[in-house]
Amino acid sequence: MTVDGSPRELKTVWLDGDVVRMIDQRVLPHELKILELRDVEDVARAIETMAIRGAPAIGAAAAYGLALAEIRGTDLRRAADRLRRTRPTGQDLFSAIDWVLREVKDGTRARDAAEAYARADEERCRAIGRHGKRLIKEGMRILTHCNAGALATVDVGTVMAPLRAARAAGREFFVYVSETRPRLQGARLTAWELGQEGIDHAVVVDGASGLLLQRGEVDLVLVGADRIAANGDTANKVGTYPKAVLAKTHGVPFYVAAPMTTVDFGARNGRAIPIEERAEDEVLEVGGVRVAPKGTRARNFAFDVTPARYITGFITDLGILKAAELRTRRAGTSRRGRARTSK
Amino acid sequence: MTVDGSPRELKTVWLDGDVVRMIDQRVLPHELKILELRDVEDVARAIETMAIRGAPAIGAAAAYGLALAEIRGTDLRRAADRLRRTRPTGQDLFSAIDWVLREVKDGTRARDAAEAYARADEERCRAIGRHGKRLIKEGMRILTHCNAGALATVDVGTVMAPLRAARAAGREFFVYVSETRPRLQGARLTAWELGQEGIDHAVVVDGASGLLLQRGEVDLVLVGADRIAANGDTANKVGTYPKAVLAKTHGVPFYVAAPMTTVDFGARNGRAIPIEERAEDEVLEVGGVRVAPKGTRARNFAFDVTPARYITGFITDLGILKAAELRTRRAGTSRRGRARTSK
Repeated sequence: MTVDGSPRELKTVWLDGDVVRMIDQRVLPHELKILELRDVEDVARAIETMAIRGAPAIGAAAAYGLALAEIRGTDLRRAADRLRRTRPTGQDLFSAIDWVLREVKDGTRARDAAEAYARADEERCRAIGRHGKRLIKEGMRILTHCNAGALATVDVGTVMAPLRAARAAGREFFVYVSETRPRLQGARLTAWELGQEGIDHAVVVDGASGLLLQRGEVDLVLVGADRIAANGDTANKVGTYPKAVLAKTHGVPFYVAAPMTTVDFGARNGRAIPIEERAEDEVLEVGGVRVAPKGTRARNFAFDVTPARYITGFITDLGILKAAELRTRRAGTSRRGRARTSK
Repeated sequence: MTVDGSPRELKTVWLDGDVVRMIDQRVLPHELKILELRDVEDVARAIETMAIRGAPAIGAAAAYGLALAEIRGTDLRRAADRLRRTRPTGQDLFSAIDWVLREVKDGTRARDAAEAYARADEERCRAIGRHGKRLIKEGMRILTHCNAGALATVDVGTVMAPLRAARAAGREFFVYVSETRPRLQGARLTAWELGQEGIDHAVVVDGASGLLLQRGEVDLVLVGADRIAANGDTANKVGTYPKAVLAKTHGVPFYVAAPMTTVDFGARNGRAIPIEERAEDEVLEVGGVRVAPKGTRARNFAFDVTPARYITGFITDLGILKAAELRTRRAGTSRRGRARTSK
């Protein structure tokens, strides 16, 4: 991704010699801090504390975590188990670990497999950009939620990919960024990326999407995904489902941008997707300062599930698909995935 | 309202000799600070900066503002004009000013009219409690938004009135408090009031209401109102409308609790209600600390409008009414309002 308009190009996470480096997303946009991770435990903690977040980015981080396990000479199975226990909802974590372990079983070094996985993630995002670009029309007003940008992937982004592609083609459009409580990934990360790309935008509170859609101020809702069930039901950052229902109410198209690695063909529908519940303090405190009165509790569900019937289409690396088409493209995906990374 | 379980009973706003005192709602729940206001300009600024907020409480504050104008010997019409310019959406501000000016024209002192208005506000809230109590059943899980408690009125509250009444009758129930960005009136004020009343509750982010309703975790949605159009369309804190649509989607009743002073019979429908847009910093900063990157803008709509068709009923001081019944009770209201305060 571009940083401060300079030629400095950064990935969200990368392998540098025998360490993993990643952007610390907890301190953006005020500080651009690069973390150095030396072993699988460092990577697991970075995922748990959300130094890195976004389903595809977590997947790549986990792949690199396995590479670190190999480099440090620790057991790959135990490393995989540790990584799998970090966060329950995002599918790419599991897709990436399974894929790297399969490659290793086939004789590839974990390090090479991880590098191949990260490269493939970028390629998938670029493909999402190529396919999704035609949906972004001149003068459009787009509503997004959370961050599905370069920071949520190795680079390029999912939602951000078609936006970048349309912008590169000279199209002007406007993005409403839902701030995304409790961790404000919209206000902090998406606003930062849109600023870097020169895309006009404004932050709104999460509750404002109803008003915007009702007033006809939104032409397209575009969100990422943390896990997509086989029937198209989609888990994404809490607050996504209300936007989908409101988009339907007001006849506005609602698209999910995600790579096929986010699809969990083992989950028949959304009810099979585990929803992470995080620490209460994320809600009760804002910026480390307690907001709610002493004694007050919170529930902090990190994701919600949008039923497939609310989703106009999925912008994937294989094209723009209807929910029913996800299943039929399954075999193709895994073959392509394998072919792409065998050297 | 009860404060810290002590016998200390406080109103949100009151006249004390020749000054107005009010709880500073900007610093709750961490500090209980009482402001002293000496003239109409002090009152106008307290309303603008949201030291006092909540449509009925603003109405009472404005009535007391006119009392201060009389006490200081300043022009009542000009004082009324200044107060009317403070905040555009809440109806009680205008209802209260019109009512006091009418009383003054009829020969009442502004001071006595303001005191009568504040007493009537409390009475209206108690009536809302008596009428609404039957909706709050044992074991229920209720979702609310923003603060429609004692702090949003002179005392007792609108949404809080039936909750208090049901609690006083020994019923146990649970309240999900939507935190209400950007100013967090749910997390700060409603959680504080529920704590004082010993009502079990948990704070959730505004985006979580979809998940809660989808999972069947909510039996009733209960919100206040800032202005109700003659057809029942209701302006309330931004984020209310999404909850109404989601409640309808999941077959959960959605009630608005408000006194008849919040009904604007001059507004045919919701499109006639002006929606306040406040300073961008309320969204871009959290607790005075900038969250969004430099250069990023925000849109800060303070309210949204819920169409009457999403509202199961209105819990008013005249009973639980359907939207179509609001109009038919109009004449009755103003007669009662007048009768109650003539001495």
